[in-house]
Amino acid sequence: MNMAAGGVPARRIGIDVGGSTVLGVALDSSGCIAGEVRQPTPRGPNSLSSLVDVIITVAEELGNDSNFGIGVPGLVTREGVLRAAPNLDGVADFEIGRVLGERLGNRVYVDSDATCAAVGEWKLGVAEECDNVLVVTLGTGIGGGIVADGRLARGASGFAGEFGHMVIDPDGPPCPCGRRGCWERFASGSGLARLAQEAAADGRLPTVLRACGGEVEAVRGEYVQDAARAGDIDALTVIDEFASWVALGLANLTNVIDPEMIVLGGGLSKGADLYLDPIRRWYGEHLYQPHLRPVPLIVFAHWGPLAGAVGAALLPGLEPWS
Amino acid sequence: MNMAAGGVPARRIGIDVGGSTVLGVALDSSGCIAGEVRQPTPRGPNSLSSLVDVIITVAEELGNDSNFGIGVPGLVTREGVLRAAPNLDGVADFEIGRVLGERLGNRVYVDSDATCAAVGEWKLGVAEECDNVLVVTLGTGIGGGIVADGRLARGASGFAGEFGHMVIDPDGPPCPCGRRGCWERFASGSGLARLAQEAAADGRLPTVLRACGGEVEAVRGEYVQDAARAGDIDALTVIDEFASWVALGLANLTNVIDPEMIVLGGGLSKGADLYLDPIRRWYGEHLYQPHLRPVPLIVFAHWGPLAGAVGAALLPGLEPWS
Repeated sequence: MNMAAGGVPARRIGIDVGGSTVLGVALDSSGCIAGEVRQPTPRGPNSLSSLVDVIITVAEELGNDSNFGIGVPGLVTREGVLRAAPNLDGVADFEIGRVLGERLGNRVYVDSDATCAAVGEWKLGVAEECDNVLVVTLGTGIGGGIVADGRLARGASGFAGEFGHMVIDPDGPPCPCGRRGCWERFASGSGLARLAQEAAADGRLPTVLRACGGEVEAVRGEYVQDAARAGDIDALTVIDEFASWVALGLANLTNVIDPEMIVLGGGLSKGADLYLDPIRRWYGEHLYQPHLRPVPLIVFAHWGPLAGAVGAALLPGLEPWS
Repeated sequence: MNMAAGGVPARRIGIDVGGSTVLGVALDSSGCIAGEVRQPTPRGPNSLSSLVDVIITVAEELGNDSNFGIGVPGLVTREGVLRAAPNLDGVADFEIGRVLGERLGNRVYVDSDATCAAVGEWKLGVAEECDNVLVVTLGTGIGGGIVADGRLARGASGFAGEFGHMVIDPDGPPCPCGRRGCWERFASGSGLARLAQEAAADGRLPTVLRACGGEVEAVRGEYVQDAARAGDIDALTVIDEFASWVALGLANLTNVIDPEMIVLGGGLSKGADLYLDPIRRWYGEHLYQPHLRPVPLIVFAHWGPLAGAVGAALLPGLEPWS
């Protein structure tokens, strides 16, 4: 690896493969962004080899002269095999780490995008200096990563942090995973849309529903956010309900992991101004024994949409990678 | 510390403080039980100093000539302060580690009984050689411990592993903790009793109810176990319902931690013959993406009621203790 004085890698490269964009960043030796490259993610039934080409192009544009890290949207084993990725076409049991490593002549470190985001926030973001951190990415679904006693907890298969499929209501709405009442049915972007549509159908969201031409199915989370920012009390009530579900799951995870800080990331970070206060308030209600512990701080992520790529850049050298 | 050849401690002492018994064990250098001492736990409003005396007597009877470990039934901070212990009288914010250490002239390592049980099973029990383990103690409530990537995860305050208060049904039965639908309302010893009484009240447990003189409140988990062992189909149905709740929580925890093995301990271990098969079957149903991962093995604990004391004996020298 290319080292600067003192053994610190001079430049690190991380790539975040998303459903629509392959985003690469280069970090300089002080952890600042020294370069960003974006390419559209190839789609279609035979797009896998194009995807590999795009990733290599992005790496080379950023100056690939070292090991690099990559975050992918799916279940990744500790050996760098992408077992499944619902948002990438034609990917199943793809040895992405080995394939890229052979093409580039360097080792490629792989983990899920959510785990990479956790690494980014822990090593260079809001959770620097924290030894026990929960990073929860609230997007279409819910993922995340765990730092326990100063180390990333990857799990036996590499699948730790699949928070979204924690069942919190066995009689709740069906989930595409085949079960009912998974946390992400309530507390993700699609959960917010579902709660909003429910409210609209019950007549509890009249202004937003009118703006959507009276069509319940047209009600989306963004419209609720916009209305809430404009002071619509019904929209704020839906946001509050949403926040209570987010907080319930965070309190559950706190019982398991006992973090000092919870970092919220993912697409819903854009609504941080609306969510943060009600999430914190509900978290205080849901937390077990709040009077006997320092209440963990809930914050939104520092890196926003760059967190996955920044964290990916930091995977090489991180302890639990074998 | 008293060392045998090769730097291995010659003898280790662990004490498990329970609501009714203070149990001490001595382990020899090969990890076998070399001594056991039991004393009743002092009760009553002013019993705290008697409790300290009893613990010291037990330690001295076992030959206290070294650091030792102690497991206590409550929330223990990383600094060895017992913040709360509902089953010990008059205990709140008790610096048990410091007080015992001063009396004995040696360092005393403290953690919760459930964390100690986890250490016992991980270091000398069924989970030896495993780097990612979930130990879940099913007793009156539910506690446990987490081994992540080969290290015990204690949490920021020392409170990791409070699995029992994970909410799995926000409309579920009220919990003494003030919320509703905590996992231990369904999947602990008291959860089994509740499910059985519900079944009895609904006329779904006629034989057991008759044996209890027709009094629903007299129906207890043990009677259901006995009837199930005698082949009563209604009792087996209640056991199956109970097992499905246990499995739902285990699947939730698997999403978070991704263990290779789940060890079940606590008082309900006595019914392992009845529970293990249905818990495993339901776990297969509840597990997220079972086809994409090795399904974690669910086993009952090796050490039974000694696990806490054995694990306590192993705390000194364990890595995350500061």
